[in-house]
Amino acid sequence: MTSHNTIAAVDLGSNSFRLQVARVVDDQIYPLDSLKDTVRFGAGLDNRGMLDEKSQTKALAALSRFSERLRGMDPASVRAVATNTLRVARNAAEFLPKAEAALGFPIEVIAGREEARLIYLGASHSLPLTREKRLVVDIGGGSTEFIIGQQFKSQKTESLLMGCVSYSLKYFPDGKLTKQAFREAELAARNEVQSIAGEFQRDHWQTAIGTSGTARSLSDIMELNGLSAGGITLEGMEKLRSIMLKAGQLDAIQLNGLRPDRRPVLPGGFAIMSAVFAELGIEKMSITLGALRDGVLYDLVGRQHQRDMRDVTVTQFKRRYHVDLAQSDRVSALCEHFYRQLCRSLAIDPEIELPGLLRAAKLHEIGLSVSHTAYHKHSAYILQHADMPGFSSQEQARLAQLVLAHRGGLKKLGTNLPDAKWAQILSLRLAVLMCRSRIEHDQPALHLEVNRGKFTLSAPDDWLTANPLTHTALMQESAEWRDVGIHLNLSPNFDHWS
Amino acid sequence: MTSHNTIAAVDLGSNSFRLQVARVVDDQIYPLDSLKDTVRFGAGLDNRGMLDEKSQTKALAALSRFSERLRGMDPASVRAVATNTLRVARNAAEFLPKAEAALGFPIEVIAGREEARLIYLGASHSLPLTREKRLVVDIGGGSTEFIIGQQFKSQKTESLLMGCVSYSLKYFPDGKLTKQAFREAELAARNEVQSIAGEFQRDHWQTAIGTSGTARSLSDIMELNGLSAGGITLEGMEKLRSIMLKAGQLDAIQLNGLRPDRRPVLPGGFAIMSAVFAELGIEKMSITLGALRDGVLYDLVGRQHQRDMRDVTVTQFKRRYHVDLAQSDRVSALCEHFYRQLCRSLAIDPEIELPGLLRAAKLHEIGLSVSHTAYHKHSAYILQHADMPGFSSQEQARLAQLVLAHRGGLKKLGTNLPDAKWAQILSLRLAVLMCRSRIEHDQPALHLEVNRGKFTLSAPDDWLTANPLTHTALMQESAEWRDVGIHLNLSPNFDHWS
Repeated sequence: MTSHNTIAAVDLGSNSFRLQVARVVDDQIYPLDSLKDTVRFGAGLDNRGMLDEKSQTKALAALSRFSERLRGMDPASVRAVATNTLRVARNAAEFLPKAEAALGFPIEVIAGREEARLIYLGASHSLPLTREKRLVVDIGGGSTEFIIGQQFKSQKTESLLMGCVSYSLKYFPDGKLTKQAFREAELAARNEVQSIAGEFQRDHWQTAIGTSGTARSLSDIMELNGLSAGGITLEGMEKLRSIMLKAGQLDAIQLNGLRPDRRPVLPGGFAIMSAVFAELGIEKMSITLGALRDGVLYDLVGRQHQRDMRDVTVTQFKRRYHVDLAQSDRVSALCEHFYRQLCRSLAIDPEIELPGLLRAAKLHEIGLSVSHTAYHKHSAYILQHADMPGFSSQEQARLAQLVLAHRGGLKKLGTNLPDAKWAQILSLRLAVLMCRSRIEHDQPALHLEVNRGKFTLSAPDDWLTANPLTHTALMQESAEWRDVGIHLNLSPNFDHWS
Repeated sequence: MTSHNTIAAVDLGSNSFRLQVARVVDDQIYPLDSLKDTVRFGAGLDNRGMLDEKSQTKALAALSRFSERLRGMDPASVRAVATNTLRVARNAAEFLPKAEAALGFPIEVIAGREEARLIYLGASHSLPLTREKRLVVDIGGGSTEFIIGQQFKSQKTESLLMGCVSYSLKYFPDGKLTKQAFREAELAARNEVQSIAGEFQRDHWQTAIGTSGTARSLSDIMELNGLSAGGITLEGMEKLRSIMLKAGQLDAIQLNGLRPDRRPVLPGGFAIMSAVFAELGIEKMSITLGALRDGVLYDLVGRQHQRDMRDVTVTQFKRRYHVDLAQSDRVSALCEHFYRQLCRSLAIDPEIELPGLLRAAKLHEIGLSVSHTAYHKHSAYILQHADMPGFSSQEQARLAQLVLAHRGGLKKLGTNLPDAKWAQILSLRLAVLMCRSRIEHDQPALHLEVNRGKFTLSAPDDWLTANPLTHTALMQESAEWRDVGIHLNLSPNFDHWS
């Protein structure tokens, strides 16, 4: 993969959408340009969890504006990520294609812990390189991420379902700032934070860092109004609470540094921050500018330098789930061999889908850790639901689908898959079939082709005679494909061979 | 638990049903009485996987006969297990209550690996105590179990979906014994065995042992017809194959030692044994009489002596899934406290359901190994699907249900649960709620009662004032129960407290 001088990250946050364009020089990132749009995306979720029309329109308009700036960029140098709102919206699947069309690039929905990992990556690059253990807290619009890390590496990541947009809407719907409202919001937030307090409390870190809008806004307000000498402090929080209670109403707050677009989400963000301070024993929090979009950029640079976090995760998973490593290598090598044959006859570039296919090949047996019975279903379940650093939700879904398809009937996949996907599935299935004995053998004498949706598998007569078990298995495999109306022709005719 | 002098095991196999009654003296088992009925249960599965009426009637009649012999025995000293046919039958859930009524005792459907474990336990007690590694192969009516073990402990267990009943029906439906039929049956079986050959081949054991009907019948035939000097040998298998091919027809076989009830399942069983010999590199197999039902009896003796395999599994799972042990102990202790309070007001014996409830409490967090998000669902998935030595499928389903219920809404459980089950769920949920901070605390000042389906939770005013977070959480909990139409009254009135 070539290194791209100019890269870009798009962050579809629950409060604001952001675009960051940067230049890469010697692995360092230098900002070139940035755009922001306070879409308040999270506020568009109705009480059934559906994203309403108005927010969709607003979001698409913002993405169209971003697309202008991104025009002509190489897809490998642009990464767009969506966070909590699209994680939870029940109509996310319908909205996403429209959003991708507007942006002109794929959009990845990332899990809370992956978001946390990327936030830390961004934050750590904007902080001095010390040996201290850091707690990073990122209060977003719909979720709050917690990370403990050291230098550039996150060690613990969590994501809780509370954000400045959702809490402001729920506990301060009419903008009234009462003792009771703050108490309720803070207790709700403390109940959330309590579930992770054991691992994130005071004794697990040396400094606390805040990232993103809520923390920066609170810090600005405290500094510009003399409520703290710098950053966010426990004392400053108490003073700010008094000021807000005294104002009694959102519109009545008079504070230097409170930007108009932050005003509506101030009380919810404040309540969450207050709960975080109380439950984790924080007395002072400093602020850094590095955040999610910077993490996305640094991750992108890593991928271009063969330090792809997804490969690190695959290696970790092989260890965690006690995968038979020799078998995993054997199956993925053979799978690649078959897939390249098929790509030739499909005239498609194998490099695009190959990395994902090989990750599926490497992890197809992780479900054996649960049970041998129907282990392909357990593998798929884990890949669908696990926290997998570096992967988007859609990538996890694709991995799960391939792994589910590697064994058993094919009807479970539906019939609407494109040829290229069937080619991946067939390559993986044949690789698993050929490696069933778990011993090293030479490249098999099989040749694969596809022509107008019909697959053809050729093998010399004498090889099949010498391998009657594989012969039987291939005939069964052909029958499985017949069940879903796909021809897997056997050449010369297999019945003839038998 | 008291020790029972007389114990009994019932084995609902896919070929025959068996009852074994025995006396326990100094941990040794002395057979008193046994009954057998060749129900050929596995043959009752139609092509949609439904157990047909005729077989159901036949099975119920056999169980009724067994019930006479079991009458008056203590439920704690009887254990009935069902294997592959009820594992796969799609109408097993409808048939089971009828079967239990006929037998007069609960019937546990056990997974293939659990069956394998119990088979080894039975076999190992009938073999000399050596230090050799043994391969035990049990070809049943619907499944074949493979175990590698040493002394009384199984080390590797597998179960494959092939048995003498199903293979005889599939490959020899008309009783014709042709080269082609044997070839097809053996290749199909070899393809199955190949998937486990890596771990069960020649170099992983020193002696091969066969258990159950197929192996015993083959061994008898070989010895009584001079095909081998003893046990099953590769050479004897070849000779027997020639004899069967020469006969050409099942009815035409003339062999000493072939019992009439074994004749119809001989060719399928032979083909599987032949495949096992070929794939695992076996040259000679000796026979032992100990089998599944003996294993069930030894397991029962273990349970009565506080060596319950289920507790061993719980301990293993806590380690395998990196459970926070202190939290696991804290939650289960508190859960017991609450459940005993509720049992007092329900006037039921807490000891019956308590062990299962506490196992759920100990394992409720295993899903965190997959992801924090919706971890209760992952915990339930693992408990439902994992190989759990000592547990029946129904016990695993009950564990999964409790664990799924420990968090989130209650609607997912339906509304048809009995009070006693709700009491378990409430005890677990409150224990988890109270332990959320993961620190040691004194016994909480909460008192639980239930009266005509209404739960009441009482706490002193000052305790709640001092614990506002718990107070909020308890109010939320009460609302969750309201959602499913169950009263969780708060006394004194919680709104009054706030």
